[in-house]
Amino acid sequence: MISGFSGAGKGTVIGKLLQKNDHYALSISVTTRKMREGEEEGKHYFFRDEETFLKLANEGKLLEYNLYGGKNYYGTPREYVQERLCEGKDVILEIDPNGARQVKKNMPEAVLIFITPPHFDDLEKRLTGRNTETPEQIAQRLKIAAREALAMPEYDHILVNREGASQDCADQLEAIVQAEHLRTEKQQEHINALIEQSAPLREEHA
Amino acid sequence: MISGFSGAGKGTVIGKLLQKNDHYALSISVTTRKMREGEEEGKHYFFRDEETFLKLANEGKLLEYNLYGGKNYYGTPREYVQERLCEGKDVILEIDPNGARQVKKNMPEAVLIFITPPHFDDLEKRLTGRNTETPEQIAQRLKIAAREALAMPEYDHILVNREGASQDCADQLEAIVQAEHLRTEKQQEHINALIEQSAPLREEHA
Repeated sequence: MISGFSGAGKGTVIGKLLQKNDHYALSISVTTRKMREGEEEGKHYFFRDEETFLKLANEGKLLEYNLYGGKNYYGTPREYVQERLCEGKDVILEIDPNGARQVKKNMPEAVLIFITPPHFDDLEKRLTGRNTETPEQIAQRLKIAAREALAMPEYDHILVNREGASQDCADQLEAIVQAEHLRTEKQQEHINALIEQSAPLREEHA
Repeated sequence: MISGFSGAGKGTVIGKLLQKNDHYALSISVTTRKMREGEEEGKHYFFRDEETFLKLANEGKLLEYNLYGGKNYYGTPREYVQERLCEGKDVILEIDPNGARQVKKNMPEAVLIFITPPHFDDLEKRLTGRNTETPEQIAQRLKIAAREALAMPEYDHILVNREGASQDCADQLEAIVQAEHLRTEKQQEHINALIEQSAPLREEHA
């Protein structure tokens, strides 16, 4: 799960990670908001009406969900994530701290990563620089970021995305994924095999 | 801390890691065994007599120590490791499971990595192939390896060193070290700075 302040460059970093190889899969959210021009069902989002969405939520079929801006629901479909994991993919969720907390409860093995610029002031520069938000929207995003900063200690890893160094940041992200695959808990079958293969030598020794 | 069966290729993997860059430092053990031709004090070992060694142990100046073969003591000097860490180095300890357990108690932040071949039978082939041990010595090493296999679940990460793929194994080792540096606990200062920098926006919002 990847969280980070608006303007921290999460999207660019995740894009570079996905380009590296095909063992990554980006999760696709379910939403009740209307489909926009150019969007495709099952590619950008799974579009559902509110009744269907809330039924999914009540049946435990969403790893997390939330109402944004008081009008549209967004959630993470458990089945979609599970299927990608079963295919051997590393599933990436781009998610806010509130969603990350909910997913962690449902999937304790999930890894929480937070992406930040070196300094909080960098956010305003970056948001202003990209010229896609009004000053009011930027002010609102910065307030949200200030609240999100308090959630950083809950994360497993912190990545600092320096100006012009998003490739380094993607490489660090990949190192974290690699290290997770090498964890003892994830190699239990192999350990059991080695313990079994070496059993005769222990008996002989006893 | 890197452990692994005799014949698993630990030495080669560590060698390749050290070649990568200079932020790694190999720990140097203290020993009571006699210096051999070609060895240097403070390079291969710190050579001490038994009285001095036991004094160091009793004063808590060794992160771990053990008597091998009933005659020579070997230990890890706390001060040497601490000094390298303070210089910003990642310190590598090549150590057996018993030593690793002792160090972990003294330094809970230490990371335990176990290197194994794909199959237990590979060990005998490799040990026979390198022609440096007698059949009796090989049999003895395999018995020790069989005991060590039972300690694998205590490790944080398991690395499989495939035939001819020690560079891959060294790369995986480096990924683990990188991921450790990115852990939230190790970036507490940076997090505190970001929380402080964003504080005015939270007050304004309240």
